[in-house]
Parts: sequence; structure tokens; C-alpha cells
Amino acid sequence: MPVLSPTLTNLIEGGSDGWEVFMRARKMIANGTPVTELTIGEHDIRTDPSILAAMDVSARGGHTGYATVPGIAELRAEVAARVQTRTGVPTEPENVMITPGGQSALFASHLAACPFGQKALYLDPYYATYPGTLRGVGAVAVPIQTRAEDGFQPDAREIDAHADGAASLLINSPNNPTGVIYTRETLEGIADVCKRHDLWLISDEVYDTQVWEGAHLSPRALPDMAERTLVIGSMSKSHAMTGSRIGWIVGPKDAIAHIANLATHTTYGVAGFVQDAALFALREGPEFEAKIAAPFERRRALTVDILKGQNHVKLIPADGAMYVMLNIRATGLSGEDFANQLLDTHHIAVMPGESFGKAAAGHIRVAMTIDDERYAEALRTLCEYVASLCE
Amino acid sequence: MPVLSPTLTNLIEGGSDGWEVFMRARKMIANGTPVTELTIGEHDIRTDPSILAAMDVSARGGHTGYATVPGIAELRAEVAARVQTRTGVPTEPENVMITPGGQSALFASHLAACPFGQKALYLDPYYATYPGTLRGVGAVAVPIQTRAEDGFQPDAREIDAHADGAASLLINSPNNPTGVIYTRETLEGIADVCKRHDLWLISDEVYDTQVWEGAHLSPRALPDMAERTLVIGSMSKSHAMTGSRIGWIVGPKDAIAHIANLATHTTYGVAGFVQDAALFALREGPEFEAKIAAPFERRRALTVDILKGQNHVKLIPADGAMYVMLNIRATGLSGEDFANQLLDTHHIAVMPGESFGKAAAGHIRVAMTIDDERYAEALRTLCEYVASLCE
Repeated sequence: MPVLSPTLTNLIEGGSDGWEVFMRARKMIANGTPVTELTIGEHDIRTDPSILAAMDVSARGGHTGYATVPGIAELRAEVAARVQTRTGVPTEPENVMITPGGQSALFASHLAACPFGQKALYLDPYYATYPGTLRGVGAVAVPIQTRAEDGFQPDAREIDAHADGAASLLINSPNNPTGVIYTRETLEGIADVCKRHDLWLISDEVYDTQVWEGAHLSPRALPDMAERTLVIGSMSKSHAMTGSRIGWIVGPKDAIAHIANLATHTTYGVAGFVQDAALFALREGPEFEAKIAAPFERRRALTVDILKGQNHVKLIPADGAMYVMLNIRATGLSGEDFANQLLDTHHIAVMPGESFGKAAAGHIRVAMTIDDERYAEALRTLCEYVASLCE
Repeated sequence: MPVLSPTLTNLIEGGSDGWEVFMRARKMIANGTPVTELTIGEHDIRTDPSILAAMDVSARGGHTGYATVPGIAELRAEVAARVQTRTGVPTEPENVMITPGGQSALFASHLAACPFGQKALYLDPYYATYPGTLRGVGAVAVPIQTRAEDGFQPDAREIDAHADGAASLLINSPNNPTGVIYTRETLEGIADVCKRHDLWLISDEVYDTQVWEGAHLSPRALPDMAERTLVIGSMSKSHAMTGSRIGWIVGPKDAIAHIANLATHTTYGVAGFVQDAALFALREGPEFEAKIAAPFERRRALTVDILKGQNHVKLIPADGAMYVMLNIRATGLSGEDFANQLLDTHHIAVMPGESFGKAAAGHIRVAMTIDDERYAEALRTLCEYVASLCE
């Protein structure tokens, strides 16, 4: 076999990628051991039948040929209107590129923003694919630590210190894995750094419909930021359409035109019937999205309640998204060791904080993705186990 | 706006991209002028309702969550079995990666095979996205001319002369735009060059079910080639599923594992319900594929018949695919000028050979994608117009 490109073979940094607990849990389940899985960011419901019916009508109606690559006109217009309504930033269809999912949007945005070999900044803790995505476009992926003590709000001075020679900064609020929502102050600090160092800001906002405290602020709405921000959107979390692979990029028209051109060479667009399904779903409006978000809001309230009754586990302020990040440092264990022991002793699977970078060491991420009763029970068991380890 | 990456802004070479005739035809249609369109490689039928029904059953059955990224096990196994049966090369599911369409497979294969800044070879004339795809992964795209006089069969010595320092060679047989099928001799010559220069061979075989003369030979089946060949497959042409965006890469297991890893960062897989639809379609077997291919076989026979009655238009041996390439050099016009005049005078739209590179100058590509009667009439009109220009 000839050699493979180092861009590919260096995608994943050497050593553990932190998903062993998840893989072990899956193996236990396959072998017949029941495991309570709190690992993956996926709803415990399926895509709504009304959305699937819209897809079927579209497909049988003949929307099975090549769709225009930047996305069908109606869907681009719908996304533009949605973004303009929710952020106040003037947004036209030409500001919108439809992509086969948020991950594809992340990759395309970084390919657009980051020349090969240049630095691309991201914040630690991070969603699992971030560093590999940046390396996949040939960028030098540079993590910037945030701190549990700051509630994982990024510090603009820290970003500023790494910004020299960088092309882009990737942020994510509401945040996976922490559930933190960045404050206006945080985002204004980030915007200043981007303007000072002429960085692209790539703002992953796929959890923007899952907000429990405060408000989601899109940094594209800050002064002079629309011209240097690429917003990543997706139907996965907001509409329980994870498997449909549909999302978007919102950005300056000239950048979107180039990214559409790139898409002709990377994906050749998104299935027309999936776009029609997405259009139907978006037109269901905010009530539908609230319905999809409601279980996570309930379980987050449950979490706060359950944690009140004890002192060992500390909750990072969980303002949004479908996760809570728990500080288990009182056990003296790493997140990884704790998660492995929890799986072995109580058959509960959670993600070690270390899976998401160095900054979340001594933490675990709990996905609130099972029914309320089982969720509450698992969380109580977890707290008792932490207490027993602290004795 | 900060600068965009040169990888993106240099994707399309300066100047004409050869699609003006196509765009003008679309504009004429939008303005109410009927145009006979023989431009795009898309069937005049839609995806079969039985395939769409399978998709709907899968979606409503709950296959709407994240699907495993290299593809669902059943589909990888089905593609592996299909490839093994048709080529004789031992092929297992781990040799197969499911992708959201052939274009995505082309991009991923080149990202895998071509280190940034290294040469990637392709043959002229070429499918429109080839050079941009190679440049999109940061490779230096190097075209190698083939000749109308050779029936556009590539010359291995020509490739050999360009192979120094190259990482890969991209070929396509049955060929778009020429309809040519590469002979065993041609492919053996290509295989020798690849082995001598340690090149990856990226073999785009998306027209492998559309063969009218001779046989399709996958170069992966030649001695010692399975370890250095990445085969691009797709359901678009074989099953009239262009809009569903589903295809695959077949290659060495180690390469496929790395490419699957890349896919986690570029696409995050393919919708489960689309994979189930593809699985259903593949299991319909060769008769179904023959039914999809039949109209093009009929129209190709019509083409040969109609061209027999005249001397001015020369047909490049059209052994496969859904196109015929016509030499109109007798008119003294370029393909581009001829196509523009044909559109203006007779409202027939064809693609200038120049849209597909330098080698097909003085030719036009005719897509056999309208019903037989209108197709025959358009072709007769075209021949009469050529004759009138030669008087």
C-alpha cells in the first residue's frame, strides 16, 4: 500500500481518545448486561412522524434528483428568516449554505477559514471531533484551556495570548460537553480578540434551542462581527433529526459563495427530500422546538434538585444543552477512573471529562438522554457512589 | 472579512468553467423558450417508488438516529459481496466505506492519498469536478491529455512521463464525458505505471452498470492492484438515485479505517434510512440495474444509426455511460462556439467538449437523457446543422 497523507494519519492524536468507557458499555450491553447509558448526545425519541411524512411526500413527489448545491431556495430563505428573527442581524438566502449536517458545516468552515499549516484555535473542553476537524483541513489545532473555577467561561486574555498567527477561533455556546452558556461579557471579549487579530470566528450554535437559564447570544450579532463570523447550525438537536444529516453555515455572502463552490467538490449537496423535510420541520415553529427541548429542561431541573441533597458532587452551572458536567474531584479519582469504576460497580456509563480535553479532568459528562425516572435513579446512585468514595 | 484560504479561492481556475451554455439554456427555459436539454447526466426517470417505500419504512421504523459512520453493517456487506462477485477480488465489509455520494468519496479518497502540495494526476477530458476536487485537498492537480485520435484511451507512457513526484492517478471508465471504456491493455499499462511510481490509483467506476460494448474491467482486479486502488462507487447512475447522495469507497482495509476516521470529522456518516433504501435497491439485483440502463443503451443504438447516414459528425466509440461524444471539427468551430450557435438557432443545449478540458476541444458531449423520439429528432437536427455549416 502506498503511504497515506499525514493529514489523514495524524488526524487523531496518539493514544487514548477517551471513548473506552463508551465502547466497554456497548460491549457489556451486547453481552447481555443491562447498562444505563448516559453517554451520547442523542434524544430518547425518534424523528417526529410528521417530519418523516413530509420527507416521503417530497420523495414520492419526485424530489429525488440532484438538488442545487447551496441548498434549495425555500430552505435557504427559511433559515435566513429564522436567523434574522432570532438574532436581529440582516440575513438573506445568500448568507446561508445548506450542508449535510453540522459536522460537515464545521469541516467546510475550517477549510474556508484556515490556510494549510496555519493555527486554528479551539477551547478546551471541546466536542470530541473538534481537534480532528481542524487537523483534517491541515490546520495546526491549538487548544486554549478554560477553567472549572470560572465555570468554563473562556478568558479573552488567554485567547489573545494564543491568537498571533492564527486564522480562526472555534467556539460553542450552549456548550457541549459543559452545558455552559457564554455570557455577553465573554462573547464581547472574544469578539474583540477576533477583530484585533483579524480572526474568523466559527460559532457552533447547534444547541441554541436548548437554553434553561439566561439567553443564547449569537456573536454574529455583536458589532462588526457579521463580516467575520461563520455560524454552524443543525437540525440534529433542535428537531431530533440527528440521523438526517442536515445543517447549515451562515456567514458573509462572499464566503458562502466560495463554500458552496467547495461543496460542489466535497458533497454535491443534500438530498432534496431531506431538505423538504427540514423545511417542514422549521416551519413548525418554536413550539415544536420547545417540545423537543422539554425533556432536557425537566431532567436538568431534576439534576439540580438531586444534587442539592449532597455535598460531594459539584454541578457546573448547566444553563443549556443536553448535558450536565459534574465535578467529582472530591473522590480523588480522575474522571476516567471514576467512570470506569462506576460502569463496573453500578453499570452506569458516563463520559470522562478527559474525553473532552485536559480542562475537564476530574469531571464527568452526563447526557440527560434517558427517561426521567431512570435518569433520576442513576443520578442518585452516582451521588451515593461518590459519597462512598469520599468516606 | 478576513481572507479565505487559498485552497478555497483557487479551487476553480481563473476564467470560463465551460458551463455558460448550460446556464444560458436554463435562463431561456425560465423565460419561456422551450429548449431541448442534452446537458446533464441525470436520468429522465425518478427514483423508483419501491426504493422510496423502503426508505419510508426504515425512517418510520425508527432508523432516524446517528448511523455508524463507516456505514451500516448490512450495506457494507452487500457492497462487499457485490464487488467480489463482479470483480473476483476478495472483498470484505472492512474494505468498504459508505459515503454520502460518489463526489464525497472522490474528495475523501484524494484527501487520503494526496499529501498537501503533492501532485495528483487526472486525465483530460475529465468530469467537471475533478480538478477542483484535487485542489480542494491541497494537491497540485496535473492533467494528462488523451487524444481523440486514440478514441480517448489514455497512453501509459504519457502518464509515466508525469508520474514523478505524484501521489495518485484518477481514472474513470466507463468515462464521462466520452462514453469510452478503457481496454484491458490500457488498464494494464496504467497499473504498471502506478506500481512503478508507487501511486494510488483512484478508479471512479460509477458508470459500471452502463456498458454497451465489451466489458467493464475494474483495475483493482489486476495483479497487485487491490493494495493500491481506491474504487469509487455510487447508486446515482446505476439505480437512478442521484439525489439520495449515496456511494462508497472500496480499498485496502487500513486505508478504509483511516478514511472512516476522516468521515467522523467531515460528514459524520450517511442517514440510516438512505442506507436502508440503498440496501433494498442493491438487493433488487442486476435486472433492476439493466432496466435503469436500458434507455441509454437504446439511445446509444439510435445514435449509431442516425450518424451512419452522414459524414460530418464523428462519433467517439460510445461503449458505455449515458453520453456520446461527437467530433464536430468539420465545422471549423470550437465545441463552445458550436454549442452556443446550436442553442441560439435550434434551441438544443449540449455541452462543449472544452467544458471537460483541452483534449475534447472541437467536440460536444450529448447526454442521452430525454425520451427516444425527442432525442432522435434533436440528434438529426444537430447533424443537419453540422452539414449546413460544412457546405
